Amino acid sequence: MTPFDNMSAVPQDEIKALQDIGALFYGRGWSLGTSSNYSVVLCRDPLRLLMTASGKDKRSLRESDFVVVDVNGQMVTHAGGKASAETLLHVVAAQQAGVGAVLHTHSIWATILSDFFAWDAGLEIEGYEMLKGLAGVTTHDHSIWLNILDNSQDMPDLARRVQQLIVDQKDPLRHAFLLRRHGMYTWGRDLEEARKHVEILEFLLEVTGRSLSLGKPAPAAIAEKDVPTDLKAALTE
Amino acid sequence: MTPFDNMSAVPQDEIKALQDIGALFYGRGWSLGTSSNYSVVLCRDPLRLLMTASGKDKRSLRESDFVVVDVNGQMVTHAGGKASAETLLHVVAAQQAGVGAVLHTHSIWATILSDFFAWDAGLEIEGYEMLKGLAGVTTHDHSIWLNILDNSQDMPDLARRVQQLIVDQKDPLRHAFLLRRHGMYTWGRDLEEARKHVEILEFLLEVTGRSLSLGKPAPAAIAEKDVPTDLKAALTE
Amino acid sequence: MTPFDNMSAVPQDEIKALQDIGALFYGRGWSLGTSSNYSVVLCRDPLRLLMTASGKDKRSLRESDFVVVDVNGQMVTHAGGKASAETLLHVVAAQQAGVGAVLHTHSIWATILSDFFAWDAGLEIEGYEMLKGLAGVTTHDHSIWLNILDNSQDMPDLARRVQQLIVDQKDPLRHAFLLRRHGMYTWGRDLEEARKHVEILEFLLEVTGRSLSLGKPAPAAIAEKDVPTDLKAALTE
Amino acid sequence: MTPFDNMSAVPQDEIKALQDIGALFYGRGWSLGTSSNYSVVLCRDPLRLLMTASGKDKRSLRESDFVVVDVNGQMVTHAGGKASAETLLHVVAAQQAGVGAVLHTHSIWATILSDFFAWDAGLEIEGYEMLKGLAGVTTHDHSIWLNILDNSQDMPDLARRVQQLIVDQKDPLRHAFLLRRHGMYTWGRDLEEARKHVEILEFLLEVTGRSLSLGKPAPAAIAEKDVPTDLKAALTE
Repeated sequence: MTPFDNMSAVPQDEIKALQDIGALFYGRGWSLGTSSNYSVVLCRDPLRLLMTASGKDKRSLRESDFVVVDVNGQMVTHAGGKASAETLLHVVAAQQAGVGAVLHTHSIWATILSDFFAWDAGLEIEGYEMLKGLAGVTTHDHSIWLNILDNSQDMPDLARRVQQLIVDQKDPLRHAFLLRRHGMYTWGRDLEEARKHVEILEFLLEVTGRSLSLGKPAPAAIAEKDVPTDLKAALTE
Repeated sequence: MTPFDNMSAVPQDEIKALQDIGALFYGRGWSLGTSSNYSVVLCRDPLRLLMTASGKDKRSLRESDFVVVDVNGQMVTHAGGKASAETLLHVVAAQQAGVGAVLHTHSIWATILSDFFAWDAGLEIEGYEMLKGLAGVTTHDHSIWLNILDNSQDMPDLARRVQQLIVDQKDPLRHAFLLRRHGMYTWGRDLEEARKHVEILEFLLEVTGRSLSLGKPAPAAIAEKDVPTDLKAALTE
Repeated sequence: MTPFDNMSAVPQDEIKALQDIGALFYGRGWSLGTSSNYSVVLCRDPLRLLMTASGKDKRSLRESDFVVVDVNGQMVTHAGGKASAETLLHVVAAQQAGVGAVLHTHSIWATILSDFFAWDAGLEIEGYEMLKGLAGVTTHDHSIWLNILDNSQDMPDLARRVQQLIVDQKDPLRHAFLLRRHGMYTWGRDLEEARKHVEILEFLLEVTGRSLSLGKPAPAAIAEKDVPTDLKAALTE
Repeated sequence: MTPFDNMSAVPQDEIKALQDIGALFYGRGWSLGTSSNYSVVLCRDPLRLLMTASGKDKRSLRESDFVVVDVNGQMVTHAGGKASAETLLHVVAAQQAGVGAVLHTHSIWATILSDFFAWDAGLEIEGYEMLKGLAGVTTHDHSIWLNILDNSQDMPDLARRVQQLIVDQKDPLRHAFLLRRHGMYTWGRDLEEARKHVEILEFLLEVTGRSLSLGKPAPAAIAEKDVPTDLKAALTE
């Protein structure tokens, strides 16, 4: 039992902040058609997440559109809504050390690229200044690998697969992952950082997708005319 | 005769909800240039639809921009506006069991794809999580066929063609259809569900269109490098 | 002399309506960077146009951002602003019978397509339902030719060229024209109709541009699989 | 020492104007994920810049999200924020004669094109009417060269490279520059002009990028059908 097992004990600020996220992401086209779900950690021991209930319109979330869930993804509150089938993915993400909020979105570019790169089981994004907005990244000269998992309706299995990637010794999953033809999950130490991660990753996915449609040639194929010596050195080092 | 044959008897809430749809869809670029029309079922026996009058600016619909029509598409109210030529298509859609609202939109992607796939008389959309937002769909592992009908100014004939597709025994039209180089019709049990269907279908059309412009190769043509065994199994099953 | 030669005699409603257009078009990206200018006819004999002054920010037009001009494009008011160099193009457009407002915009797609089709001196747009929103068009089965004129800083010459196209006996310019790498001019019987024309033409230009980027194959090259007989007949007639 | 070395002496109008820029650019997608920074010149001798502090959310900048810096990029105020690592680039830009404001943005198209044209160390934009919105440009028949510098975390070195381009005798850097896979810097005599420059350059970058994706053929390759003699003459002169 925790104080938050009663919906009326959930701080209004947390609800307002998630309502704001909903209106913002709906406006940007990342949470249309009642898609997406968002959660914040209310307490960790035992774990309680304040989370959007299943199938709610993110454009204007009402107070009754939220539930509180436990570590097993079960509702501990008894309000009108029901917990999303994807609650377990939020739990897995929220159980990482230092995570305070988890955001799941359905954008156009995440959907397209999660399919385009599905056979690689992920995509690399490297060398962009925007990467510095991700927690722990301090230079643009950095590369992230964004895992793509095949979509599934078997949530315990999908949660287990994500968990395996997170605890991988050699190359642990960081910051975010994509579900094929579905959307993105990311998180942060609080809601503000999680939102920053959504904005940065969506930006980088759009840059990646639009660059593909330009048929951007590989660096090696570009003619070397007019390149100042020092820039050329910098680019090829 | 019904109470709704007098415009003043139409609930203000229904008008406000359609005004809100207009401002929202105008903002998203789905109802520019006085295009589009929206309707809700006021009563079924006899049928009465509250509907946007012909040629009104959807950005800021006024109360006088609505009419009430009957099962023959004829106006039963005598306000300033006149009924849209496309009223019969709303009637055909609204006569389906459980339909409470019909939304017709003119988006960029619906216009483009209704033309691109015209010779197939439709397009298939399959395997997307967003499909679960459509009434009756419970898994992403689903496929919809979005019929495309050739555009026409002969509304009785066009309405008859739509009606035939709806009552087709083998493969009845579901959720929505496109008119070539014109736009989309969709519906729902109420206005909220109909709006959800617009948002989901527009999302999926944009994903389809932008994927085409990436020249997305067919799955069979993708190199099988670096695919984890279990993901590959999942993708090819 | 007319009453409107004094700025204080210009109806506030006309100013407010143009301020609204500015905020709307700025938001849509059609009037960025102080580009664009808008005018309405105050009286016809002698001609007086209320018009945005040169180089004003369209996001939030102030009352002092307007001037009144005569048939020679000369200012008759003595406010802070100065008349745009393009005033003569507004005069030529406004002198057509039944024109009450002229809108000049700088959109992404008008700029791109005015260049892409420059060697054809125009582009054809045909078969779209949206065409019915243009004054005098009653069916989608219609074609418009959108003239493209080479851009110029010699406004009297450019105005003369537009005038020649308008009075052309065989194929007079209708509804709108494009200036190469510059933007679009359109008009209507009042500001509301002129705005509708902007929205419709911008929509059709975006559809045209995005269809080009899909590499839409010519109808003859499409495989004829799965086409219902009646649709095929309709498409090929 | 200057009066502005105390944050409370900074005019509220300057802060409000930068807050407005933040909300506007965030909405347009040019300043997502706490990216971007903006500055205005408070005084020149000694130089003081009011500037957004490092890593602040541009959607809703608070008063405590600003700092005042000197000619060495050092903070002279002692508020909550810390100066951005890129402060020196603002200083270099602001030291040019007649510059009153510097805006650094992270847009999709600036990021893509700064990469696409990196081996040319810049891109040419020519012949667009929108160019006339840049300070000192009076005709569309004009060409700008937008320098691209390789991105770096070594700010003193990067600032030196920008400075060299600005003082270049033969072909000095004007209006703006791009950092590869990073974003754009531009400026103006005041914040209004700097914002105009952002809007115009972003517009031209988007036009350039989308034209590339249309595979716009070179003028010489276009068939010469239907070109009126005078237009053809104008285009080929």
